[in-house]
Amino acid sequence: MNAATFDHQSRWRRAAAAMARDGIDALFLMKPANLVYFTGDGRPCALALLTRAQRCIVAVPQCDVPSVRRASVATEIRPFRSGEEMFHGFRDVMREQGLTEATIAIEKNFFDAALFEVFTAHILPKAKVVPAAPLISALRMIKDAAEVSCLEEAARVADAGMAAAARAVRAGIRETDVAGEAEHAMRNAGAEGWASVTYVASGWRSAMAHGPPTLKVIEAGDAVQVHVAPIARGYTVDLCRTFLVKPVAEEVSRALRTYVDAQQLGVAAATAGSALLGIDGAMAESLDRAGYGSAFLRPVFHGVGIEHEEAPIPGGHAVIHGEKKIDQLAVGMVLGIGNCGIYREGFGVRLEDTVWVSDKGPVELTHHPKLAV
Amino acid sequence: MNAATFDHQSRWRRAAAAMARDGIDALFLMKPANLVYFTGDGRPCALALLTRAQRCIVAVPQCDVPSVRRASVATEIRPFRSGEEMFHGFRDVMREQGLTEATIAIEKNFFDAALFEVFTAHILPKAKVVPAAPLISALRMIKDAAEVSCLEEAARVADAGMAAAARAVRAGIRETDVAGEAEHAMRNAGAEGWASVTYVASGWRSAMAHGPPTLKVIEAGDAVQVHVAPIARGYTVDLCRTFLVKPVAEEVSRALRTYVDAQQLGVAAATAGSALLGIDGAMAESLDRAGYGSAFLRPVFHGVGIEHEEAPIPGGHAVIHGEKKIDQLAVGMVLGIGNCGIYREGFGVRLEDTVWVSDKGPVELTHHPKLAV
Repeated sequence: MNAATFDHQSRWRRAAAAMARDGIDALFLMKPANLVYFTGDGRPCALALLTRAQRCIVAVPQCDVPSVRRASVATEIRPFRSGEEMFHGFRDVMREQGLTEATIAIEKNFFDAALFEVFTAHILPKAKVVPAAPLISALRMIKDAAEVSCLEEAARVADAGMAAAARAVRAGIRETDVAGEAEHAMRNAGAEGWASVTYVASGWRSAMAHGPPTLKVIEAGDAVQVHVAPIARGYTVDLCRTFLVKPVAEEVSRALRTYVDAQQLGVAAATAGSALLGIDGAMAESLDRAGYGSAFLRPVFHGVGIEHEEAPIPGGHAVIHGEKKIDQLAVGMVLGIGNCGIYREGFGVRLEDTVWVSDKGPVELTHHPKLAV
Repeated sequence: MNAATFDHQSRWRRAAAAMARDGIDALFLMKPANLVYFTGDGRPCALALLTRAQRCIVAVPQCDVPSVRRASVATEIRPFRSGEEMFHGFRDVMREQGLTEATIAIEKNFFDAALFEVFTAHILPKAKVVPAAPLISALRMIKDAAEVSCLEEAARVADAGMAAAARAVRAGIRETDVAGEAEHAMRNAGAEGWASVTYVASGWRSAMAHGPPTLKVIEAGDAVQVHVAPIARGYTVDLCRTFLVKPVAEEVSRALRTYVDAQQLGVAAATAGSALLGIDGAMAESLDRAGYGSAFLRPVFHGVGIEHEEAPIPGGHAVIHGEKKIDQLAVGMVLGIGNCGIYREGFGVRLEDTVWVSDKGPVELTHHPKLAV
């Protein structure tokens, strides 16, 4: 899937309209996810300015210019040869565009605080700087048909990885080996990379919120959480399953069945026009009823797309991510639902699927059986 | 290798001495690489305060407490159950430690600018905030024997991955498949994860500074850059090779031979007491002589260890990373040397090894043959 698949002109028009509405003169972009969304090319170590007049100037390492030309819809591509040139060159761009004293929106939830200070002091000393995330996320969180088709492809790759993990999980194998089999299957299925670390967390390690694999050997009785987030056609999905290595304690299998039921209620609540936090409410109520209220970790969902975790992001977690709170589900949102899980002393169970909020209701894009053992 | 391998008490003592010297009362830590360095446990979504009085208070998700207890040397472990609790709980910690109006060093090159503003305004409204990177990097960039042994293990894993890539590269195979074989071999060798994306960039794509794999099929005549950065025992190395798929143009193989020679001169320049930028000078002079001066992209080296790119980082690049400029090589530094390469229109060649600056001179930790085809 190449840049031509997406309607970048429409994205520019909508961004320009939002800039006019919010009094913003230009977006300054450095986050690869935003660069690819607006220009068709999202490599690290690149910068772009997208102005309200719909000029789009990109700066990339000199050696990258030919490959950027193949992919980018920018109106101008400039080369740089060092980290210093990368930023200093943008002072000239700002001057040429008459934007030295303009209002510039910056990805403040991407720039680190140290670089942000240096950058604003030296490159934008007279500009008014505002956060770019609210404007950009409002566009990016609504996926069009071409994007959903990329997400379906990423889901196909994720399902291939989870099937390989299901075949690999058994007593006597290391967590790292399960990750290796899942990743190998995903590469064979066309994975371009990983939007998040592959997690394989077994036994006592399954009780952790984040479980990258270790050399721990899986044992009989273990719950084994496997989480994959491959990138295909530039998009990613979230898929998590918990496998049980027999014989397991009844407490463990009961927790897993309970979480599967709760997650299905969460998915069913993802309908356009409903409250975004209705997903959380549906899951929390179900888990409370089963006596797992206090064993439940939030947030239980987040947006997914070009990035592994993107808008909409619920509640206070949105603030941590530099995002605006979103109240309502809308057609075109795509969510990872089930993030986090039931955690007990000694084990944890979790299940996550990627769900597209279509005009006909929630559609699960990931398909691996929820209770496969 | 578990936490007990490392002498955390010595790290605390040296940090406390540096805090006393710099007038800092406590380090506030959120970066997993710094958390693991000071506490033995470096998971995402965790916070720590290390005071000059050598108290170390860690906050982690409630479900993670038992697993943190296994690994962490913190003096106190506190649980939280949501993103809000995660930060708000630290207001109490600051008050209890009498640090509400103290000087607190923060990882300003890790915190994003948006979160940094919210955090300092709400959690540290009366504190004096200074950057933590200079103090922490001065400690972390000098590796002790236990760390070098972890780096050797990561290098062994990287070499296994590169050997698998060498076997896989041929006309007719996709870049993603080569990445899959390399990663699978590294998982089998015990890789816990990837500190950087695996790069496989062939033909025209090898001319890019960063080359994550795509579905492009490798063709006869292609230069194929493969870059791996596995994590083992919590440490990572950088290893890059360029394979040539015969028959290749003489221009391509000449560029590769030239870069191999230059990189070897760069490695030889990595001796304790020498100027850090002597590595750059040695490589640049050699490439200039061969007529490749303008085809050469900087920086050509950087520190490596718990992170893929850490101190020492040369020149202006250090500023971008929020790090101090370092002038001199010292025993215990570990560097990726050869980063970047020779880039031409249509192809690029690159070669990188991880080098330990020992008291007997530079020691390459990665061993894959430099000119394997």
